[in-house]
Amino acid sequence: MELPEIDFDKMNGLVPVIAQDAETGQILMLAYADRKAVELTMETGKAHYYSRSRQKIWEKGATSGHIQEIVEIRLDCDNDAILYKVNQKGGACHTGFYSCFYRVMDKNGLHVDGVKVFDPEDIY
Amino acid sequence: MELPEIDFDKMNGLVPVIAQDAETGQILMLAYADRKAVELTMETGKAHYYSRSRQKIWEKGATSGHIQEIVEIRLDCDNDAILYKVNQKGGACHTGFYSCFYRVMDKNGLHVDGVKVFDPEDIY
Repeated sequence: MELPEIDFDKMNGLVPVIAQDAETGQILMLAYADRKAVELTMETGKAHYYSRSRQKIWEKGATSGHIQEIVEIRLDCDNDAILYKVNQKGGACHTGFYSCFYRVMDKNGLHVDGVKVFDPEDIY
Repeated sequence: MELPEIDFDKMNGLVPVIAQDAETGQILMLAYADRKAVELTMETGKAHYYSRSRQKIWEKGATSGHIQEIVEIRLDCDNDAILYKVNQKGGACHTGFYSCFYRVMDKNGLHVDGVKVFDPEDIY
């Protein structure tokens, strides 16, 4: 598949990808993708990323079942950030929360504000 | 100001920051922040970032007037991505669109789907 002019060069072949709940607008996670991960996402309609720690492509939910069905993909103005709008099955966060952004940060530190949708011990 | 344990080490002292319209949930832009930019954001209530190209901190809207008033700041599960929920004045994108993610990417390429809220020639 031929991709538009995504700028993979600024970050060693990766671009940051925001995953957003297509229905509610809630932000689910931020991860990274290489060219192949973006191609697989477009071809399969399921969100793929590139793991910097494991140094390989992963399909979100391949292990947990918590896949992300792609509704729309957007590219930002300078071609170096991508947005996946998705239907999230289960929860996006490995901790069991629906979103990885389940903590508010303010002058008093961090406090949890999120919905837990599964027990990670049941999954991983 | 003492910040929570944000992981600035994975990306040469920076973390990616998603800016989201606090009211509608629309994603406005993705940029980067160093420790000082996050501190300034929390202290002033206005979104600050770190420009990788100019290698300095910038206050969003300092030139254009299109500031982002902070409503909430969130940190993700592994402390290496930040979400600013904001009230956006004017538009977020230097092209004049309200959001930097004004292009949809599909198998036919890119097509514009966004709202233009100002003429960049009037501003920059």
